Amino acid sequence: MNAPAAIEGMLPADLRADFPGLRTADGAPWHYLDTAATAQKPRAVIDAMARAMGEDYATVHRGVYARSANMTAAYEAAREAVARFVGGRADELIFTRGATEAINLVAQSWGRASLRPGDRIMLSQLEHHSNIVPWQLVAEATGAQIDVVPLTDDHRIDLEAAEAMITKRHKMVAFAHVSNVLGSVLDTARAAAMARSVGAKLLLDGCQAVPRLPLDLATLDCDFYAFSAHKLYGPTGIGALWVRGDLLESGEMLPYQGGGAMIDRVAFTGTTFAPGTQRFEAGTPAIAEAIAFHAAVDYVGAIGVEAIHALETRLTDRLRRELLAMNDVTVFGPTDSAGIVSFAIDDIHSHDLGTILDEAGVAIRAGHHCAQPLMDYLGVPATARASFGLYSADDDIDALLEGIARTRRLFGKA
Amino acid sequence: MNAPAAIEGMLPADLRADFPGLRTADGAPWHYLDTAATAQKPRAVIDAMARAMGEDYATVHRGVYARSANMTAAYEAAREAVARFVGGRADELIFTRGATEAINLVAQSWGRASLRPGDRIMLSQLEHHSNIVPWQLVAEATGAQIDVVPLTDDHRIDLEAAEAMITKRHKMVAFAHVSNVLGSVLDTARAAAMARSVGAKLLLDGCQAVPRLPLDLATLDCDFYAFSAHKLYGPTGIGALWVRGDLLESGEMLPYQGGGAMIDRVAFTGTTFAPGTQRFEAGTPAIAEAIAFHAAVDYVGAIGVEAIHALETRLTDRLRRELLAMNDVTVFGPTDSAGIVSFAIDDIHSHDLGTILDEAGVAIRAGHHCAQPLMDYLGVPATARASFGLYSADDDIDALLEGIARTRRLFGKA
Repeated sequence: MNAPAAIEGMLPADLRADFPGLRTADGAPWHYLDTAATAQKPRAVIDAMARAMGEDYATVHRGVYARSANMTAAYEAAREAVARFVGGRADELIFTRGATEAINLVAQSWGRASLRPGDRIMLSQLEHHSNIVPWQLVAEATGAQIDVVPLTDDHRIDLEAAEAMITKRHKMVAFAHVSNVLGSVLDTARAAAMARSVGAKLLLDGCQAVPRLPLDLATLDCDFYAFSAHKLYGPTGIGALWVRGDLLESGEMLPYQGGGAMIDRVAFTGTTFAPGTQRFEAGTPAIAEAIAFHAAVDYVGAIGVEAIHALETRLTDRLRRELLAMNDVTVFGPTDSAGIVSFAIDDIHSHDLGTILDEAGVAIRAGHHCAQPLMDYLGVPATARASFGLYSADDDIDALLEGIARTRRLFGKA
Repeated sequence: MNAPAAIEGMLPADLRADFPGLRTADGAPWHYLDTAATAQKPRAVIDAMARAMGEDYATVHRGVYARSANMTAAYEAAREAVARFVGGRADELIFTRGATEAINLVAQSWGRASLRPGDRIMLSQLEHHSNIVPWQLVAEATGAQIDVVPLTDDHRIDLEAAEAMITKRHKMVAFAHVSNVLGSVLDTARAAAMARSVGAKLLLDGCQAVPRLPLDLATLDCDFYAFSAHKLYGPTGIGALWVRGDLLESGEMLPYQGGGAMIDRVAFTGTTFAPGTQRFEAGTPAIAEAIAFHAAVDYVGAIGVEAIHALETRLTDRLRRELLAMNDVTVFGPTDSAGIVSFAIDDIHSHDLGTILDEAGVAIRAGHHCAQPLMDYLGVPATARASFGLYSADDDIDALLEGIARTRRLFGKA
């Protein structure tokens, strides 16, 4: 790692060795710059998954035998650990299939109960589809309407514009904490104050923020916070929804999916539901995934999100600087992007760039990044995106820049 | 394995060695008789999961680099393999979080689009909560009503009664293919003919059937078939919903969850959705889980469900016979139960039995088994349930019977 001294001391030198995914099939280093899509997993997470599926395996919440009781304790310890990682309490954390399901859960369980015709939902122009389409579906079902906050010139959510737009009819403000395309970081305090001022709920899509920024939900004044495990160096198949405790307790959220575990008592004459987070976890949960999720927050917590943020900030600064120095490159997003750099090269389609980079052992993402309304706003069909993770280093940027130079030559631009 | 000669030849002798979960913490054999709750996983499944999370890991459907393309191919190959395992086609198979989500998906996506006030949904008295509560929720939302089919004297769904009950107002018949408490096997051909006769859709909850009975959805005339991976020796966090191809193509199912991957084009002026199964898989899927699910159906397929069924049938026969010979034991369910035996011992609560058995290295389940309406029908608060899997053998029954004898002694009954 070539991080500056202050960070160098905080980050273990051999982090990459923990990640079996960071090598190509022939054992060469792989310059993985697609961590915003999904993070590679450390051996500790993979091992926790294997143990939970193997010698420790049993169902949870039901078995009368000791191994099932142990597994239940491990599952609930995972809830505790994941909640603590984001500054929340275990009784505020619902395990979901992923961040997408978490947002859908809010749209369905809170939205169908609370939204009336004429009510308004405030989103922004840079949202991921998973923070747009659930709201479109519930708006159609309830007669609510969606307002879209524009972006500032440097591609942040324009909170000044939002403040001018918000009304008492707004019942929900749902923003990305960190943009998955641009890395733009939301001023959460200002967004929260705005939502509070009209009594609207605030949901933050934290998929990109949780692995990149220190977070304390106990002080961040939002109502819902959604994130996934797989972007946090954890397993696929699980994510989390944090819900403010008093909101969960108020009972104003309808049941979500029906099934085992979420009920108090089932009868054909009428069913009553479990209280708290349990009401929202129907069926056999993602047991092994929860335990591997625990291992992931332990791993990331031991490194420290502050150190990861410092590393990613330095790498982002360097990459932005190098790209901005090229006169045929457009760089999107603000200067203080959190570890994500979107760019476009004149006359080279980002897919072509991605394909040529792949041959050089560099993985970036090219496309609309599940943010078509943002692409429309930026006036491009697609961008190339390089995103950093805790295992990223300057050699990844070197390889990317070499790959860009090679692409230029192949396109006769050099 | 002590299976009879015909089966002995079909089942590998050392199957148990494939399952790291079948030993206690101190290395002793564990008599795991709770496979109906969740199956232990063979090493092949655990290894596939670890590989998919490690050296093969990448996102699917999006990456421009080769590893992501490979992962996409592996994910889609999993869909193909799981569909083929149940006699369906890949373009009919939706990956879900589990069977519970699969049924909720039908209740929400098909039910909200199709059910009108006064329409009727036919369920049975033996359904698992996950095939009751989703229908209660959608009935409340749409004004539809639920009818409950009683059971025969030997605790099967009474299809004669059902045939007398069904009307043109019935739009959905949703039955367990195999009861999770009793092992009762549904006469699917008769249920399908009944549903067809009034134009109702037929959903089968196949959680217990898929690991226990040979299945061919190409000839079984149902519309929806739900099952989970974790009961089929696969991972947690994933399941499947098979939907008849023409029903998927008809577009009569509404989108379910909104988000990435399930869309065609997202705009704030209006979003269009992807066709086919993709419409119902929002967000980053359970990538590693799908690949481990593939490994599970490969493993079970290589052994053969016919052989598993034959083994479980023989063990069930023996256990039922031994229990019925005890004059203080009630055995529930039909004589041809598919690998699941529920029973109660006079004056010994099933939880106490379960706890004492645990000390003897025998794991059973005690409780309502997420089927409270069935408990009410049977007139018991709970049952003890022993359920077999492909790794079960006579020594498991021996240990269970010894444990029952010991429990009797402890209760001063012997």
